[in-house]
Amino acid sequence: MKIILVGATGTMGTYLAGTLEKEHEIIRVASKGSDIDTDITSVASIEKMFLKAGHFDALISTAGPTFVGPWKKLNNETFRQGVEGKMMGQINLVLIGQKYINPQGSFTLITGALTHDPQINFANASAANGAVEGFVRGAAIELGNGIRINAVSPTVIENSPQYFPYFPGEIPTTMKQLEYAFRKSLFGSVTGKVIRP
Amino acid sequence: MKIILVGATGTMGTYLAGTLEKEHEIIRVASKGSDIDTDITSVASIEKMFLKAGHFDALISTAGPTFVGPWKKLNNETFRQGVEGKMMGQINLVLIGQKYINPQGSFTLITGALTHDPQINFANASAANGAVEGFVRGAAIELGNGIRINAVSPTVIENSPQYFPYFPGEIPTTMKQLEYAFRKSLFGSVTGKVIRP
Ligand SMILES: NC(=O)c1ccc[n+]([C@@H]2O[C@H](COP(=O)([O-])OP(=O)(O)OC[C@H]3O[C@@H](n4cnc5c(N)ncnc54)[C@H](OP(=O)(O)O)[C@@H]3O)[C@@H](O)[C@H]2O)c1
Ligand SMILES: NC(=O)c1ccc[n+]([C@@H]2O[C@H](COP(=O)([O-])OP(=O)(O)OC[C@H]3O[C@@H](n4cnc5c(N)ncnc54)[C@H](OP(=O)(O)O)[C@@H]3O)[C@@H](O)[C@H]2O)c1
Repeated sequence: MKIILVGATGTMGTYLAGTLEKEHEIIRVASKGSDIDTDITSVASIEKMFLKAGHFDALISTAGPTFVGPWKKLNNETFRQGVEGKMMGQINLVLIGQKYINPQGSFTLITGALTHDPQINFANASAANGAVEGFVRGAAIELGNGIRINAVSPTVIENSPQYFPYFPGEIPTTMKQLEYAFRKSLFGSVTGKVIRP
Repeated sequence: MKIILVGATGTMGTYLAGTLEKEHEIIRVASKGSDIDTDITSVASIEKMFLKAGHFDALISTAGPTFVGPWKKLNNETFRQGVEGKMMGQINLVLIGQKYINPQGSFTLITGALTHDPQINFANASAANGAVEGFVRGAAIELGNGIRINAVSPTVIENSPQYFPYFPGEIPTTMKQLEYAFRKSLFGSVTGKVIRP
């Protein structure tokens, strides 16, 4: 399979690229230091990336910038980080990528437990996650050619100990659990689902 | 109670204003033909509305424009109708309105069953709904002064028969059920919840 991995240089992306590349062709995408440097907040940049990558079988996204910080600083401007990044960035990867993906292909986007289990400082991520999950359900019944779409929604992951203090009482998602959630979306037949690892 | 009702001239808003005004002071807000004409897609317009309305006890929103139409027409531009309207419009009502609302006040936003039960033509609304619901959960743990926030999520309502063909098999939400969901949020103690009438 030819898999485009957006967010490939991040914590999740590095792990997923490392394990999936043993069996598949991985095209690593990130803002910088990747196979095809791309800014997912720019429609033009996304278009260019797909033109360069060419037809593909699956797209995974683990790229989802949001505003993390005190509620007092949350306003129309700071909120746009999640809107343009995690939300519209990922949604545009699908709206544009559907023109380039092979039949029976799949999109797998990243959300997170914050959709339903909010934490202080993370309201922007809760909103962006909810948007992506709603979109995934809506898109699943619209995409043609047997193309599937799902979201993976982990809680804080074991390789991100810097976030543990913000997620009290959450048992971290292991990298293996995360990987298997993506495998379920990539290689299974599920669509329109939010997969909780 | 002094209640600001945004979307007061619409199908839901007209009904809710009619029943709530028997017991409460209602300030009707819409784009046009209201007590304080306001464009919720503009932060400046929202700021002006709150300055004019003054302190209040509750805000209800039944204003949530989205793009409704064929999947082929859904792109970064059309998607913005739901992003700026139903999503950021309502989120900005809260982010700005929190400066003007009285302690123990409440915000009640509108979403809809499309968050979890998608329908053809409505992916933009599914995303906007999901965003608002995620935001409501995140905001509920951040808002100070005992201020509460909830969303009401009906399926197609009985007073909107023009939408029935798009919601096959959905038993319409009655206006009374809708009213009671808003009453639960307005006068109960619930917060951070998506209330399904
Ligand atoms: N880490 C966790 O515990 C956890 C748990 C649940 C959910 N999540 C969610 O999962 C996602 C990934 O988490 P992570 O910890 O792997 O994040 P990360 O380490 O910060 O990695 C993010 C990746 O996305 C790329 N990226 C960011 N903005 C981009 C843009 N505008 N255009 C293109 N690429 C961009 C980054 O590349 P550049 O550095 O080049 O921009 C990087 O490759 C986030 O949305 C996060 O909210 C994380
Ligand atoms: N109707 C249903 O069956 C149903 C079911 C579930 C969920 N919903 C959701 O509930 C919400 C309300 O539905 P409805 O049928 O009552 O809608 P509606 O009849 O179209 O009324 C919408 C109201 O919002 C106002 N509005 C729209 N855009 C605005 C803006 N930019 N700034 C200020 N006000 C604005 C309108 O005023 P102007 O005309 O002056 O702009 C009107 O008062 C929508 O978000 C819809 O998705 C509806």
